[in-house]
Amino acid sequence: MPRLDYPEAVVDLITELKRLPGVGPRSAERISVWMIQHNKANPEALSIALDTAREKVSLCDVCGFFSTLGECDLCDDDGRDVSSICVVEQPTDVLPLERSGAFGGYYHCLGGKLSPLDNTSPDDLNIAGLLRRISQSEAEGLEVIIALSSDVEGEATGNYLVEVLSKLECSVTRIAQGLPAGGGLEHADELTLMRALQGRR
Amino acid sequence: MPRLDYPEAVVDLITELKRLPGVGPRSAERISVWMIQHNKANPEALSIALDTAREKVSLCDVCGFFSTLGECDLCDDDGRDVSSICVVEQPTDVLPLERSGAFGGYYHCLGGKLSPLDNTSPDDLNIAGLLRRISQSEAEGLEVIIALSSDVEGEATGNYLVEVLSKLECSVTRIAQGLPAGGGLEHADELTLMRALQGRR
Repeated sequence: MPRLDYPEAVVDLITELKRLPGVGPRSAERISVWMIQHNKANPEALSIALDTAREKVSLCDVCGFFSTLGECDLCDDDGRDVSSICVVEQPTDVLPLERSGAFGGYYHCLGGKLSPLDNTSPDDLNIAGLLRRISQSEAEGLEVIIALSSDVEGEATGNYLVEVLSKLECSVTRIAQGLPAGGGLEHADELTLMRALQGRR
Repeated sequence: MPRLDYPEAVVDLITELKRLPGVGPRSAERISVWMIQHNKANPEALSIALDTAREKVSLCDVCGFFSTLGECDLCDDDGRDVSSICVVEQPTDVLPLERSGAFGGYYHCLGGKLSPLDNTSPDDLNIAGLLRRISQSEAEGLEVIIALSSDVEGEATGNYLVEVLSKLECSVTRIAQGLPAGGGLEHADELTLMRALQGRR
């Protein structure tokens, strides 16, 4: 019996979809079927959106947020507080913080976190750019707020930053860890409760 | 403070990615960042694969498997056993069965399963095509094997098919349910064990 396989065009599509982060072989197959099966799938729109994003959007050289044709909405915003810089992992971490309404300063996206397993060393992150920004800053009492994930890699990256930044003229703070809003004590894990207790005020 | 948002091109890309089955808002954001951040992301390849698949591939009018430019590798294969048709939900269910090496007949992809919640009625599935294939078949002792998922919708679809097919000249069987290969009894849920017991031979 000859070995049956998907048509070449489907295999190519599955291969390309599988390369996306978070899309496994089964998801890639499901997406392919959906694309081919549904008239409303409109893959042309995705294909155009991909090309446009690739062409127009890049990451800002200064802060690492998305910039369109070299213009960054964050860095170009004069209305922000120059005396604080919030350090996050990814450009997608900026909007959740903005929506909280609790921060009005500038951001700095590292582009990831230190991770020996993924071979991410300090040189792979936009740390040199952060040090440059801080040393070039003319703001009085500059505060650098570290807002990284509360997992092992996020903690390690935070500790590394604290050490590096201690040599510069700025104060360094970290966002609090504790009970999430709306979460009852009975649903919190031990580590969260431990940190919530340690961070009590 | 003006409300910050992603550049328009990024918003468009996220919107298109979110429409894919199994891709939520967070995954869509992560994929977008990856696309823009990594040089090796090569979104052109995905965009080309999408266009090619859409242009060349459709679902076979007869069996519902993928066909390239109207030619179906399954229906065009003369070496298969004409006396058995295996009914599956999706074209992606065909290859796993082929790989098992336990079936050498033809396939019929319904394109889904009955589901009142998703508004999928018998008219939305390729059931009329199946009935036509069976009544036009000249094979002696035609066997229709129902190989649908073992969830509620799959069961309901199977029961519906058994009823509809009882009026035609063919025997109808269903694939067995029971303990998965390599799975110990201690990891199996009660329903699986009940069905494994009921299906004992």
